[in-house]
Amino acid sequence: MSTDTALYPSERLATVAEAVRANALDVLLLTPGPDLRYVTGYDAKQLERLTCLAVPAKGNPFLLVPQLELKAAQASPAGALDLEILTWAETGHPFGMIARIVGDPQSVALSDRMWALHVMQFRDVFPRAKQYLASTVLSPLRMRKSAAEINALREAGEAIDRVHAKVPGWLKPGLTERQVGAKIAEAIVAEGHVQVDFVIVGSGPNAASPHHEVSDRVIREGDVVVVDIGGTMPSGYCSDCTRTYAMGRVPDDFVKYYDVLYRAQEAATNSVRPGVTAESVDRTAREIIAGAGYGEWFIHRTGHGIGLESHEDPYIVEGNTLPLEPGMAFSIEPGIYPGPHGARIEDIVVCTDPATTGDGYQLMNNVPRDLVIV
Amino acid sequence: MSTDTALYPSERLATVAEAVRANALDVLLLTPGPDLRYVTGYDAKQLERLTCLAVPAKGNPFLLVPQLELKAAQASPAGALDLEILTWAETGHPFGMIARIVGDPQSVALSDRMWALHVMQFRDVFPRAKQYLASTVLSPLRMRKSAAEINALREAGEAIDRVHAKVPGWLKPGLTERQVGAKIAEAIVAEGHVQVDFVIVGSGPNAASPHHEVSDRVIREGDVVVVDIGGTMPSGYCSDCTRTYAMGRVPDDFVKYYDVLYRAQEAATNSVRPGVTAESVDRTAREIIAGAGYGEWFIHRTGHGIGLESHEDPYIVEGNTLPLEPGMAFSIEPGIYPGPHGARIEDIVVCTDPATTGDGYQLMNNVPRDLVIV
Repeated sequence: MSTDTALYPSERLATVAEAVRANALDVLLLTPGPDLRYVTGYDAKQLERLTCLAVPAKGNPFLLVPQLELKAAQASPAGALDLEILTWAETGHPFGMIARIVGDPQSVALSDRMWALHVMQFRDVFPRAKQYLASTVLSPLRMRKSAAEINALREAGEAIDRVHAKVPGWLKPGLTERQVGAKIAEAIVAEGHVQVDFVIVGSGPNAASPHHEVSDRVIREGDVVVVDIGGTMPSGYCSDCTRTYAMGRVPDDFVKYYDVLYRAQEAATNSVRPGVTAESVDRTAREIIAGAGYGEWFIHRTGHGIGLESHEDPYIVEGNTLPLEPGMAFSIEPGIYPGPHGARIEDIVVCTDPATTGDGYQLMNNVPRDLVIV
Repeated sequence: MSTDTALYPSERLATVAEAVRANALDVLLLTPGPDLRYVTGYDAKQLERLTCLAVPAKGNPFLLVPQLELKAAQASPAGALDLEILTWAETGHPFGMIARIVGDPQSVALSDRMWALHVMQFRDVFPRAKQYLASTVLSPLRMRKSAAEINALREAGEAIDRVHAKVPGWLKPGLTERQVGAKIAEAIVAEGHVQVDFVIVGSGPNAASPHHEVSDRVIREGDVVVVDIGGTMPSGYCSDCTRTYAMGRVPDDFVKYYDVLYRAQEAATNSVRPGVTAESVDRTAREIIAGAGYGEWFIHRTGHGIGLESHEDPYIVEGNTLPLEPGMAFSIEPGIYPGPHGARIEDIVVCTDPATTGDGYQLMNNVPRDLVIV
């Protein structure tokens, strides 16, 4: 598909090999997951049997797969790359095979999500190598999204926006969070995602638990409900959007801090432009919330990067002095959780070049942020 | 829920601490995944922020969670255990916190699915410790399923059997594998799973690719279709079952080797009883297939353990001399893939004590294994 070629261009493998050399690493080793998909387009399942892309500083990259995965690997976008695909038989020694080809490296970089099961076997076959994380090499590349990637994030944002637009119709007193969550999960797939990544329906006191998922709590008149949902699109790119809903009349103190939150989220978003640091976006939101007296209830960072993972670099958090650049994509999602209720507003934002777009950012989510009274 | 208490008994934490000492390890460190769920019942999401259960040989176990996950952790089964739950704030140093409590261990065991991202940070804070896999401690426990766990596997088997019973109605010439796969995925959830783990619909030549998933290939009259599907139940336990379907008349050579496969799968199943080794079950299937001249086309092991993971110990593979014991649960799934078609038959089997059950095994899947002509 042309979309796939634009999202996962065949030149990327050479770019990554160049980055391996620039980082003075001997070999990059990627097991299935977002790193492997980014480099090759191959959406393989992470399993105990080793599938591994090796990108050595010298010599040709190769993909080693279990014999029973060969046809699946060949049929994947990796099959169209200038990349030898090797196989190991069921009773073979895949780590030994890689070691025989790669030799005796001094430094290896392993995908950040590689299982310890595999990390330790790579340690055994490369006892002299220092192990680094693949993000050393890949994070600077993955953080700077191409036009095709931003388009994929926009499609993901539009899909999850369509789900949020339906949420008010499903929030009815008497239903449980789990019942509403099931409808949302169905809609996430129906609106174009291939996978539901998370469904948070936090009602009443659960709205004050940021990573609550769903429970059998019955939603009641007067509740506040935080709905934070996301999935993965066929492209591999993720959506993530939070809105807070009110079941009829809500307490005055809630209305007051929701307004603070709204202004903090908006100000942080408006502050995004190239050159601004990640932590300064966090501070913009935090200062408004703290200034209004709710600082102790904003207990998490302002956001996280998003792309092939729901959470990836850059993190919008105190201490991250990274200057934003065009193409960086991340959430802006301050929250206030004083209990017995809480609120969060979240959009995905992409940093853009004001010279070409007239603005320092573009929003991937566009459902209204005002408190929705159901 | 009583089911949860039976599946995840509160005594398990003490049993695991005893196993840590018996293995002469200083501390067991578990991030979210099947190991953490097995020990505590806590079904946490694997994320970049550290959530970690520490079970030291000396001293009390504790669970460290991000501050924003505290309420979710307390509401989980882990909240009911005799287990201190500690939190770290968004800009804190969770690895340092664990090191301050645990001291200077010489040996640490890390969950097999722990991300390299965390493995390397544990290496940094415990530079003198040798890292082992948690399976050293947990695999012997997790392999021997309790009555409650076997019941959970039976419920999973019945759920996936109900899906297979509907598959013939969905296999129609003119539909794509992807269209049939979408119906199957919906049914996996509708029949009681909380998650679809995999949907393989391999038609025509794709039937000869064991880990093919779905494609846009249109299913045609005369095709053979391998359908290998599984999901995770609310209990955390997994299903996995394969049947092969024929779209009308199929080639004579296929009918011939399907019969060989049927006999191999049945003989391997019948060979299961305590004391028989894992590899001998593999050999039983392999000898029948090889004896009929199809050995080169049986390109994978005969099976894998199953429980909180789709693939876990014990693996039914040449070289695994483990003697089977009552409570061990695994797939028996030989396949023959000569191309331009292929076949596989898979059931989940639990080894049982003949003295109490009258037989050496029980089947978790009971849909007919005969070739289903659609």
